[in-house]
Amino acid sequence: MPARGDHEARRRDVSEAVWRVLAAQGFGGLTLRAVATEMGASTGLLTHYFPSKQALVRHALEVAHAHTANRVRRKASGKGLPALREALLDVVPLTPEATAANRVWVSFWDAALGDEELGAAEIKRYERWRGMLRPHVDDAIKLGQLPSDVDPDDIVVTAAAFTHGLVVQALFDPARFPPARQTTLVDNFISSLSHH
Amino acid sequence: MPARGDHEARRRDVSEAVWRVLAAQGFGGLTLRAVATEMGASTGLLTHYFPSKQALVRHALEVAHAHTANRVRRKASGKGLPALREALLDVVPLTPEATAANRVWVSFWDAALGDEELGAAEIKRYERWRGMLRPHVDDAIKLGQLPSDVDPDDIVVTAAAFTHGLVVQALFDPARFPPARQTTLVDNFISSLSHH
Repeated sequence: MPARGDHEARRRDVSEAVWRVLAAQGFGGLTLRAVATEMGASTGLLTHYFPSKQALVRHALEVAHAHTANRVRRKASGKGLPALREALLDVVPLTPEATAANRVWVSFWDAALGDEELGAAEIKRYERWRGMLRPHVDDAIKLGQLPSDVDPDDIVVTAAAFTHGLVVQALFDPARFPPARQTTLVDNFISSLSHH
Repeated sequence: MPARGDHEARRRDVSEAVWRVLAAQGFGGLTLRAVATEMGASTGLLTHYFPSKQALVRHALEVAHAHTANRVRRKASGKGLPALREALLDVVPLTPEATAANRVWVSFWDAALGDEELGAAEIKRYERWRGMLRPHVDDAIKLGQLPSDVDPDDIVVTAAAFTHGLVVQALFDPARFPPARQTTLVDNFISSLSHH
């Protein structure tokens, strides 16, 4: 029997191979065979970790969450709208890492729309993200950066919508949406909010 | 040999089955077997129409385009921003038909991110859509509904981004985003543009 350390190292190898498959081919290309090929291992070895496609997808979702949770974030330069700006710039594909993460999450939408459990996970993921943006909007209202009569939840939904829609356009057409253009678009969006 | 009319009727049956599979399972669930099951036909019959998965996906893309092109659109109540508002409301999932169409196109993103030809098709689709929104933005500037110093292309990209991002949130969480809420969000977004 392999030592416990070996076992954990192998699990880490598997998780990293799952991430590389996700980043290259999305959830749509995630199969035991693709992960096995990525590791130079047999499909048989992989079935030891993932007895079903569902088990593989669940693990991939954990891996994607961990990548998202652990990524380096920008430092907010101020409270309210400046912090909201940084939070949106944290999401859009300004770097190769952010591009890979977005490619994975956009691919997850197809998987999640066809599966009740994954769909519920995606609803929660949106709630969590909107919940992270909300304090910046509340601060912006308190600080007078936003009119006091706006519905903060509407602003949060709109900011999330704008950001994910920009993600998709930029993923497909990086030549048209280099980082500077994305940043300008986010800046203009933030500035339009103050007149909402 | 079947009469020509039979042949065309059968092709239409195939196209309709492809659409039903797309609407229910997205591009990720599109297989010869799924289409055959949907038609109550054999996979063998389907290979007559689609010698490869690629041929099936290409046909599905045509079917999805035709559905989008043929859908009933809202009548614009005015030029410029009112027309832009109607164009965005045409896209978001306010009806079961629009929900099905959006579910199909969101699922297409995964397929298109993993395939150069499909990715190029999606870039063109975005260009076409932004090209349809652009005259409304130009009108809005001419009519003084938007400041004359805005970059019309940035407004178009932002409107497309907001709309697709709202589509995704509404698809996953229809209880939180009933038609009235989506309409309010679009109205507020349009009104924020005039202060861009």
